[in-house]
Amino acid sequence: MANGDSISIEVQEAKAAAKLEKVPMLAHQKPEKKGWKKGIAITDFVLRLGAIAAALGAATTMGTSDETLPFFTQFFQFEASYDDLPALTFFVIAMAIVGGYLVLSLPFSVVTIVRPHAVGPRLLLLLLDTVALTLTTSCGASAAAIVYLAHNGNPSANWMAVCQQFGDFCQGVSGAVVSSFVAVVIFLCLIVLSACALRRT
Amino acid sequence: MANGDSISIEVQEAKAAAKLEKVPMLAHQKPEKKGWKKGIAITDFVLRLGAIAAALGAATTMGTSDETLPFFTQFFQFEASYDDLPALTFFVIAMAIVGGYLVLSLPFSVVTIVRPHAVGPRLLLLLLDTVALTLTTSCGASAAAIVYLAHNGNPSANWMAVCQQFGDFCQGVSGAVVSSFVAVVIFLCLIVLSACALRRT
Repeated sequence: MANGDSISIEVQEAKAAAKLEKVPMLAHQKPEKKGWKKGIAITDFVLRLGAIAAALGAATTMGTSDETLPFFTQFFQFEASYDDLPALTFFVIAMAIVGGYLVLSLPFSVVTIVRPHAVGPRLLLLLLDTVALTLTTSCGASAAAIVYLAHNGNPSANWMAVCQQFGDFCQGVSGAVVSSFVAVVIFLCLIVLSACALRRT
Repeated sequence: MANGDSISIEVQEAKAAAKLEKVPMLAHQKPEKKGWKKGIAITDFVLRLGAIAAALGAATTMGTSDETLPFFTQFFQFEASYDDLPALTFFVIAMAIVGGYLVLSLPFSVVTIVRPHAVGPRLLLLLLDTVALTLTTSCGASAAAIVYLAHNGNPSANWMAVCQQFGDFCQGVSGAVVSSFVAVVIFLCLIVLSACALRRT
């Protein structure tokens, strides 16, 4: 009886020793991978802050750019505003939506920092980022096409350039378009980072 | 001596038996995962064929849409072509590039069918697809902005609609824009599929 007890205790001690041997090996292996993925997650969060600034900056610059010319006739005052052109109205709405999405995506980005190996939030962010990239690119490109026309006009279609009259308005609108393209580049970086982090390690 | 030989043979046989036992288990486990990933890879290939058709169709429709009006003055003949408008020229070039990229990406898609667990080609396709999505969206959106202007004009900027005169030209251009947006939707599906397949299983 006493002999049997001592044997079982010895076996348990041997198992405990085996566990102790295993645990440090795992602990040594994990932080390396975790640190790599955590770094990506933190970069993701910082880039997202930059994208928020670019998107909301573009929306407000476009939304506040209007110009009233100092001369007017009896019946008409010359004024240019973003809501005269449908493409620029679409720009303001789309950039506001993208800015709102980016703010709402910050908690998910924090989750990927806390749990670098979670696949769900990262996959969700990748897919929604792709949709937001499409929205940002389309509104930026259509606004750019209209701004180009406002700067240069088109003699074939008999569309005159309007930027000689409305110089400040055109500058504000051009700045907003540049800011939206900065947001597009940041979204591309975010998608590349997410894809690399999703890869099996 | 003879006894030792027989023992070593027995051990080898036991090992062989253990291997035989293992192989069917692995073979039973693998096809399930492989089939799932292979299905995604085949869908990817078929969608890519559809995207090639949409992209090259858009480029050729836009490139061949020109219209010459049946009346002319002594010095001038009224003609509309895609190269009168910079946004439409950009559209033709960008859609041709996207079509070429899609054709060149087919071999990589075949590699993901043959080796469903390879991470490299899939990651490469995901990243290049994202860039191609951006290019397609930007050229489609800028052409859409110009086509909208050609259809409706803009009284604020004093830009007249030109589609009353050039109806056939406008129809061809509108068709090309719709085709480019079909390509955008297919690219979104491709990216979603690639992201799901990249996920650890």
